[in-house]
Amino acid sequence: MGQEYLNVKFKETGHSNMYFPQFIPYSFIEKEASHVEGFSPELALVTIGGGKELEEKLVVRPTSETIVNHMFTQWIQSYRELPLMINQWANVMRWEMRTKPFIRTLEFLWQEGHTAHATPEEAEKEALQMIDVYTKFAYEQAAIPVIAGRKSKAETFAGAACTYTIEAMMGDRKALQAGTSYNLGQYFSRAFGTQFSDENGQRQYVWQTSWAVSTRFVGGIIMTHGDDTGLMLPPRLAPIQVVIVPIWKKADERTGVLNAAISVEKLLKTAGIKVKLDESEQRTPGWKFNFWEMKGVPLRIEIGPRDVATGSVVVSRRDIPGKPGKDFAVSMEHSALEAHVKSRLEDVQASLLQRATSFRDSNIVDASSYEELKRAISQGKWARGPWSASDAKELKVKEESGATIRCFPFDQPQGWKTCFMTGNPADEVAIFAKSY
Amino acid sequence: MGQEYLNVKFKETGHSNMYFPQFIPYSFIEKEASHVEGFSPELALVTIGGGKELEEKLVVRPTSETIVNHMFTQWIQSYRELPLMINQWANVMRWEMRTKPFIRTLEFLWQEGHTAHATPEEAEKEALQMIDVYTKFAYEQAAIPVIAGRKSKAETFAGAACTYTIEAMMGDRKALQAGTSYNLGQYFSRAFGTQFSDENGQRQYVWQTSWAVSTRFVGGIIMTHGDDTGLMLPPRLAPIQVVIVPIWKKADERTGVLNAAISVEKLLKTAGIKVKLDESEQRTPGWKFNFWEMKGVPLRIEIGPRDVATGSVVVSRRDIPGKPGKDFAVSMEHSALEAHVKSRLEDVQASLLQRATSFRDSNIVDASSYEELKRAISQGKWARGPWSASDAKELKVKEESGATIRCFPFDQPQGWKTCFMTGNPADEVAIFAKSY
Repeated sequence: MGQEYLNVKFKETGHSNMYFPQFIPYSFIEKEASHVEGFSPELALVTIGGGKELEEKLVVRPTSETIVNHMFTQWIQSYRELPLMINQWANVMRWEMRTKPFIRTLEFLWQEGHTAHATPEEAEKEALQMIDVYTKFAYEQAAIPVIAGRKSKAETFAGAACTYTIEAMMGDRKALQAGTSYNLGQYFSRAFGTQFSDENGQRQYVWQTSWAVSTRFVGGIIMTHGDDTGLMLPPRLAPIQVVIVPIWKKADERTGVLNAAISVEKLLKTAGIKVKLDESEQRTPGWKFNFWEMKGVPLRIEIGPRDVATGSVVVSRRDIPGKPGKDFAVSMEHSALEAHVKSRLEDVQASLLQRATSFRDSNIVDASSYEELKRAISQGKWARGPWSASDAKELKVKEESGATIRCFPFDQPQGWKTCFMTGNPADEVAIFAKSY
Repeated sequence: MGQEYLNVKFKETGHSNMYFPQFIPYSFIEKEASHVEGFSPELALVTIGGGKELEEKLVVRPTSETIVNHMFTQWIQSYRELPLMINQWANVMRWEMRTKPFIRTLEFLWQEGHTAHATPEEAEKEALQMIDVYTKFAYEQAAIPVIAGRKSKAETFAGAACTYTIEAMMGDRKALQAGTSYNLGQYFSRAFGTQFSDENGQRQYVWQTSWAVSTRFVGGIIMTHGDDTGLMLPPRLAPIQVVIVPIWKKADERTGVLNAAISVEKLLKTAGIKVKLDESEQRTPGWKFNFWEMKGVPLRIEIGPRDVATGSVVVSRRDIPGKPGKDFAVSMEHSALEAHVKSRLEDVQASLLQRATSFRDSNIVDASSYEELKRAISQGKWARGPWSASDAKELKVKEESGATIRCFPFDQPQGWKTCFMTGNPADEVAIFAKSY
């Protein structure tokens, strides 16, 4: 879901897919101080291999900066090899105490990008570019109106110079960090000795980035668009965009209805639409309606004997349940049906984004005092307000309200700002929320 | 490489992609007797998680039959859920003592299909269907003329009723088992209690299959087509099908050459060809020629100042080195160039398959006596001969010649056959070879 789209974007922006070993010698993890501190409580360790106790424990990768740097030191000699920009699709393991499906799991699937550059400017540009790729993916494919921005120092990943994030508002109004891009500076290159000879023959440490989205994003889609009936998938990411349910009662209706259903399936497939004909005779049409609604299929096409007679079908939208979302008597005629379905899929895509955007905007409060912030948070909302206070004050907000700074959004209001906590001038507004 | 093609084929044949946990409780592995016997010497075990010794060791999956059956028991209630047909793309771990890049590695990537059926006939049909998918993939995409067939009883995977295989001849004439499909019978369903209620309400064990190709196949491509210069990738699987190398000496030639190269790149990209313009100025054209030949790119396009003047380019084939493989003065004109490149890519694809097929056929000897077999094997060739002898005799062949039965090919010669070992009647010929 989305892997193909992201692969195209990664390649367009100059990255190659590679794969690195999943088992990492424990000594690698220890090389970067803040890295080992951050991850050591969460590691799964292999101590027995091929029936024997291992001399050195192996870490099941929680992320790959260490092994990537180990390889980069062997691949990079001079500025000619830079920038080196790779991506890996992989599973990672973090020993979480409290798990939640898709959001916080012991094992998850992700892509992790890793790049090495000759200058800090290039690394910064890359980190920003990739958070932009994620932002567009969220809006255009997943219909999730994320807010992109920079993490506060307190919330920045240990081992990174700067952390960029996309933050999504779930249906319960908690924030989900849905994608992350790190400007790693030289933390890892200094720890691993990842150096290159510049054009003057001087040895320099590379400047690095890493960036990732994971199966957590799938959780984000479920919790953004889903309702009590089940999933509601944005058409551009749905593995099945249209399900066809044939309906008949009398045996002599069967062939006519099925033939019509098969020809509609063929027509839509030829038009590049991901279509599923549910022709199983072991389930009733009502059972199938519920099943495919739960699965979040954006459009359903019903075909019964009367439809066959009139040469039409009924098209229903998952996002508008019941009669209001139904187009009765859509012509079965080739070009008419194709155009109708394509346009309805676009309607669903746009309407999911619009609905999520309205929901988000009606649940963000502009706070000009700490009291207002606390009130907004206690109502389950997000708060946005000018902030230039200390890390200690940030911790105080967290302890008293349960909310953290999700990000300083890239998109900032114009004009003079005063920190709502201290009354001092503030360069930026920050967004505060409770989060997963 | 090939993942997209296989995913389409898997979906066309009714399978859904899923993902199962990589860590498997040790007790699961112990449930199927021959399974634990086969895999226990090769397991990597996680004994520490989140800083604590685990109560039950976790196996890092060597394959997923056990965890799949654990889930299937929860998903399958009645015949209505059957057939259940899934595929997983995943990494697996086997603690190999002697490793060889791509062919035998501690960690490898693969797809593993797992299916459950109501009848043994359906399972057998599925196992055969999937080895056929692999066979077509090998011929049509990888240009590898594999021989598909059934493993002998002695070589059948423990825990399977029947093993189907595709066997490929490498450049050193060793055999590589490049893909496998198992009819698992009820071994796992009985061990795990994977049952369904049939139409009469009777509880029955499901009949299962599993099938896999892995990164080993990449090794097969390298060792089938590669030469002393490096890789030689079949165009249909090559991540880069055409590399463009611009060539100039004088500074005032640069813009003209680069503009021409960019427009050729654009033209080919629009035509759906995977093209790479190597415009870096840090390397010489000669360096680039060697580099991209080593990487196995099927076609190279050179553009120099004279080509720009005449509106033409030079096209070289990777599989025919030097002047014989060069088309000089191919028109840069849109439709002419597109047609030329597409046709040359097809030429390379066909020629790789033809070359590998000739090589294979000239290295298989029809043996009508054990002496002939041993001679063929000692010359590094494969031997094919009628076989109906015992498992003990099969072991004797292995011990004396180093060759094993690779398969009884589906494609059998007509007519009466006499076992070359015993002189008894034989139903089939078998293929013997040394293997990886």
